[in-house]
Amino acid sequence: MDTIFSKIITGEIPATKVYEDDVVLAFLDINPSNQGHTLVIPKTHSVDATQTDPAILSHIMTIGQNIAKAQRAALSATGNNLIFNCGADGGQEVFHTHLHVIPRFADDHIFQPVKHTSYQPGEADTVADQLKKAL
Amino acid sequence: MDTIFSKIITGEIPATKVYEDDVVLAFLDINPSNQGHTLVIPKTHSVDATQTDPAILSHIMTIGQNIAKAQRAALSATGNNLIFNCGADGGQEVFHTHLHVIPRFADDHIFQPVKHTSYQPGEADTVADQLKKAL
Repeated sequence: MDTIFSKIITGEIPATKVYEDDVVLAFLDINPSNQGHTLVIPKTHSVDATQTDPAILSHIMTIGQNIAKAQRAALSATGNNLIFNCGADGGQEVFHTHLHVIPRFADDHIFQPVKHTSYQPGEADTVADQLKKAL
Repeated sequence: MDTIFSKIITGEIPATKVYEDDVVLAFLDINPSNQGHTLVIPKTHSVDATQTDPAILSHIMTIGQNIAKAQRAALSATGNNLIFNCGADGGQEVFHTHLHVIPRFADDHIFQPVKHTSYQPGEADTVADQLKKAL
């Protein structure tokens, strides 16, 4: 599947690379939440993180962890977010698996408060049972 | 380090479990963004995902991926978010590593638009060089 990220992998579209090996490529997000916001993508195409080979997903996480540490060391970040958005309804915009590694700083106000819901009595057990059966 | 999650691991505090093995525990978030919002935590304490043993982090991701798939199969979710918030400035509230696995649905409006910044000419290269040196 042809996306802007597959074109970055082949070099058709330029990117500011942070890390590369045989399995993954990491580069700066061109629309960063904070400077240093990095995307880690697999070189083999998968649509989103639910579809990625587990060994490749593990490698993406290892590299993402290293980049998060580098954001703290090199950019003086005091926090990080590591985020896979899966599916258009999950906020995904490019349909090639990518891990967002975002450096965070005090009072940077990147994210607004997130909505929450609740469970009626007994409802949580029902939902957990549904998930357990599907695992 | 004693947190609400270490007490869930020992059984001192109850939780609605979704999955458990020797390395990780997965349970429903009691303050869910959507019903079925699950947390995956390592049984060995680490403060956040930047500090977690890479092999354990990989296992957390594998289980998180399975749960995301189960959310689609069992709850008819059409998307997911898999999120590690690291550090208080990263929005972390409980200081024991945890992966949020959030089922998403069309128009659920869980997240508000995220702030973005940009790079002046040459600035992205400088930031990438700083990260590369710290990797």
